[in-house]
Amino acid sequence: MGIFFTRYSIEERSRLVEAAAGKLPADIVITNVNIVLPHTEEILEKHSIIVKDRRIAGVVEDELISKHISRETLIIDGSNDYVFPGFIDLHVHIESSLLDPVGFSKIALKHGTTTVVADPHEIANVLGVQGVELFVKASANLPLKILIDLPSCVPATDPALRLETTPHVISDKEIEQLACFDNIVGLGEVMDFLSVTNASDKVLRKLKVASEKGLIVNGHAPLLTGRLLDAYISAGIISDHESTTYHEGLEKLRKGMWLYIREGSAWRDLGELSKILLEKSNCELCAFVSDDVNVYDLFTQGHVDRIVNLAIEYGLDPIKAIKYATFNPAIRLHVEEHIGVLAPGRIADIVFSKSIKEIKPHTVISNGDILYYKGELKKTFPRYRYPEEALNTVKLGPFLENPSFTPRVGEFNGVARVNTINVQPGSALTKRTVEELAVENGEIRSDPSRDIMYVAVADRHRGSGGFSMGFIKGLGFKAGAIAQTIAHDTHNLITAGWNPQDMNVAVKEIARIQGGIVVVDDGRVIAEIPLRLAGLMSIEEPEEVFKKYVNMVEVLREKYGLNFESYFMTLALISLPVIPEIRITDKGLVDVSKGSLIPLVEEVLKA
Amino acid sequence: MGIFFTRYSIEERSRLVEAAAGKLPADIVITNVNIVLPHTEEILEKHSIIVKDRRIAGVVEDELISKHISRETLIIDGSNDYVFPGFIDLHVHIESSLLDPVGFSKIALKHGTTTVVADPHEIANVLGVQGVELFVKASANLPLKILIDLPSCVPATDPALRLETTPHVISDKEIEQLACFDNIVGLGEVMDFLSVTNASDKVLRKLKVASEKGLIVNGHAPLLTGRLLDAYISAGIISDHESTTYHEGLEKLRKGMWLYIREGSAWRDLGELSKILLEKSNCELCAFVSDDVNVYDLFTQGHVDRIVNLAIEYGLDPIKAIKYATFNPAIRLHVEEHIGVLAPGRIADIVFSKSIKEIKPHTVISNGDILYYKGELKKTFPRYRYPEEALNTVKLGPFLENPSFTPRVGEFNGVARVNTINVQPGSALTKRTVEELAVENGEIRSDPSRDIMYVAVADRHRGSGGFSMGFIKGLGFKAGAIAQTIAHDTHNLITAGWNPQDMNVAVKEIARIQGGIVVVDDGRVIAEIPLRLAGLMSIEEPEEVFKKYVNMVEVLREKYGLNFESYFMTLALISLPVIPEIRITDKGLVDVSKGSLIPLVEEVLKA
Repeated sequence: MGIFFTRYSIEERSRLVEAAAGKLPADIVITNVNIVLPHTEEILEKHSIIVKDRRIAGVVEDELISKHISRETLIIDGSNDYVFPGFIDLHVHIESSLLDPVGFSKIALKHGTTTVVADPHEIANVLGVQGVELFVKASANLPLKILIDLPSCVPATDPALRLETTPHVISDKEIEQLACFDNIVGLGEVMDFLSVTNASDKVLRKLKVASEKGLIVNGHAPLLTGRLLDAYISAGIISDHESTTYHEGLEKLRKGMWLYIREGSAWRDLGELSKILLEKSNCELCAFVSDDVNVYDLFTQGHVDRIVNLAIEYGLDPIKAIKYATFNPAIRLHVEEHIGVLAPGRIADIVFSKSIKEIKPHTVISNGDILYYKGELKKTFPRYRYPEEALNTVKLGPFLENPSFTPRVGEFNGVARVNTINVQPGSALTKRTVEELAVENGEIRSDPSRDIMYVAVADRHRGSGGFSMGFIKGLGFKAGAIAQTIAHDTHNLITAGWNPQDMNVAVKEIARIQGGIVVVDDGRVIAEIPLRLAGLMSIEEPEEVFKKYVNMVEVLREKYGLNFESYFMTLALISLPVIPEIRITDKGLVDVSKGSLIPLVEEVLKA
Repeated sequence: MGIFFTRYSIEERSRLVEAAAGKLPADIVITNVNIVLPHTEEILEKHSIIVKDRRIAGVVEDELISKHISRETLIIDGSNDYVFPGFIDLHVHIESSLLDPVGFSKIALKHGTTTVVADPHEIANVLGVQGVELFVKASANLPLKILIDLPSCVPATDPALRLETTPHVISDKEIEQLACFDNIVGLGEVMDFLSVTNASDKVLRKLKVASEKGLIVNGHAPLLTGRLLDAYISAGIISDHESTTYHEGLEKLRKGMWLYIREGSAWRDLGELSKILLEKSNCELCAFVSDDVNVYDLFTQGHVDRIVNLAIEYGLDPIKAIKYATFNPAIRLHVEEHIGVLAPGRIADIVFSKSIKEIKPHTVISNGDILYYKGELKKTFPRYRYPEEALNTVKLGPFLENPSFTPRVGEFNGVARVNTINVQPGSALTKRTVEELAVENGEIRSDPSRDIMYVAVADRHRGSGGFSMGFIKGLGFKAGAIAQTIAHDTHNLITAGWNPQDMNVAVKEIARIQGGIVVVDDGRVIAEIPLRLAGLMSIEEPEEVFKKYVNMVEVLREKYGLNFESYFMTLALISLPVIPEIRITDKGLVDVSKGSLIPLVEEVLKA
């Protein structure tokens, strides 16, 4: 079928050809600009760009432009600015921004991004195939070209292991069905690299479907080297965005992998990997990606423009930095005929910046439409009407009426020796320790003196009322309780706190707003970010979400000296039973290396 | 559907993954080689290559190779040679080699070429859609990966103009049907650039089909610049192989076109265009092509290896030169996951050369099979069984029984003022002059003193007996007559000579051997190259064809001091009514700029 913007319309092309030849007037003429050509690493001065409908009809010497202008032509005087192709982000999880596709588009375009490849595995885990379809539809027809990678690892763990309730499965069959939409471009990150290197039939079948449908496969192979890396690539996966060191990146490049260099909110690999870019005069298979970038960073730092500027700070030539964000990504997607280049025939995705040493997009044209002009928004972004089932995804069942946060071991007083999750804010890894905790009237108590707090995970997809309880040490959280419906990958409800009362308030608020992040102290909600869409994304305007995020950050910092993001991210990962060493799901505690549930309590000692 | 070598086989991939991981032994291990990585512009020393089935499972440090070796593993000691990916020729007319696809494969592989994109518009002009289908089938399942561009300009001229008999038409409908084969990759060179820049519906429809079928469009835009070039590109054509000057090439590159740099028998643009390659540290959109390369040059100079060596002579870094013949073409075809790179997962197309400063392939592995080992052929190339209708394509009808080569103007003696085709061997252009020629008994005579000889073109496709006669000046031919069934684009029979008797012998011989090139002197055939397949290609072994070609060249040179190729090429183009100024077809003389037939005789003056 092909990607929507590659469709050939005879009528459109006919007009474009005639406009190029000067037989029809231009719709837009951009003059007095310095045109950056990343594919030849040149800057054209004294040239103008002709736009007809949504494509570029010509890049023309200034003195020859007049015959392309009529009374209807909009002339943009570029004031000697630099113009370059719209940025292309090859790998982003829009859910991580906390914005929905519409909101994300609005802010991404402001920063000069005109195309992204989104991997919606978060919403896929919450709403299954319907979730992906919904995301696909909400992402279509936006001024930002959102291409979709079909999630390849839903669920993240093998349901047969019963480590957590995984309501949705996307197999090769669902992938085949979903591939019919015209904004599907790839197969999402193949995270289960052990299955790949073991040549598991399940994953090879997905790769086969990808091949048949012409899907570009997104790889995910952190720390894989040597023979295991060769095995992973041999399965037919030639890209990776998980490299964090120079040597890892270099090995992958040499082995013919596309190296997606990540710089976002969660992962910041550009510093390390820029060494490769600076060493080689040209890196054919390199491209910048954001992976996860939250609303706060989007507003305060930017998107791909931020990565390009950082690369320039690290010493990269600005045109090369722009190339890794435009031309190279277009080549990877096999659509260099349409995007990533300012040249005739290409879609008019044109970004203006006063300076090339520091990219600050002020005017952004996407698909031939002016989205931002000198910093001002010129188009509306109508809200998408999501169906009810996507807006009501917090179904706690009996757990809502009768939540429980304090594990019981009978009716006695004494001590329990408890498997405890030790975290270090800023790190994804956890350690398992066995802690002695007081038991009062059968209830195991948290212990502020040792920074051991309650944690609970409850099924919020099926309304089963299923939940599990545990203890988390080292979070350093000083308010009463925090609850959120972002808990990778299954995104059940997770809550951590010092006492059941605050945790109860947090959970009830989550249910009331139908998803989000809630912080409670002394029995009251002190800050929250509602995330109504699937309990993952806000459906409000991005500026509103940014305000709420800033409020959350400031309340926690000013009142408690806390860094919101580190708690949010730590709790967001504590339920993911693939990262060592110990996790908690709605089914209980998981020993990751054993791949099995373990009891909360090892032993009880009665007083 | 996708190209055949991109098909995903779970069984094959499973074995490849296991071989990479060391769980299955390699089929071939290549040790003691310096591995050229054009995509990172590096050479890996002390590494070995593991091949399993037809793909590469790993590029492995020498000291770790032993666990991949079993008793069944074939170990090739590379003797410290250089190895690099098999060459990829993005644009070649196999017919111009005078060899059929099987023969062409044999010699191309010897020179390290493992993939070509062939444009069979010659056989399409002779045998229409059936001809293309036949070519597609004969090209499948060969050790050389022959991908096909579906011809876009058959016939070369508008049949409505009636300038020549054009028996076959390939419209967008035929292109759509033919696109179902799994070795089709593109739409052949869009030569009718005027139709493109005029946004003609007929050609835009072909471009639309190409887009729908995912075909890569091959451009052909000689001397187009400025607005017309923008118009051509805007139609959706982003490659060109016709650039002959530095400025032309640079403009096209800047405008986002792929620059195919030609170096073959007919066109030798590398010298001029290498200036671009030397100027830019990296040329993303550049690739080497041969376009037309005849059997003599294939045997004595080579194929793509010849281009790479010439580029090195012009000062290009050897690894960069190899990149323009391997990695870049793979990127253009969007198949970098499969070819153009020596890395895991890729097809094992591996070429060995002792030196990298001068490429001399001695061992060639294609699709994991050893084709040549230290210069010796290791596999057979079974002849393809062409159907009768493809081997009997010289149907002259009544013209065979009763040929005529001397135009008549009545029964008188006197002088005729005749439109004459003036040629310059080595140039494709012709000039029209009006020459006074003697008329004896009504027959217009050739005039050796002014180097004006007879020329005739006869329909050989329909057996209509249709033909036309004329005069050609300046050919400098000193034997009696030459006849050939290669006459672009319609490939009727063309013959030129000093007297009707020799021309008659030549024509009869052409009919007897059913196509080829025949030279006659004093009533005898003195040299010939039979071209039985469609009258364009030999079905003999390439070594045999080479011998006959050499014989032809030597006979003409030694006996007459003539350069065979210049006559052959001049006559091959004299019937193509798109190159100015005057041509001759089976319908008569054509004034190219007027686009119409003109009379042979302007005036007669009776003695």
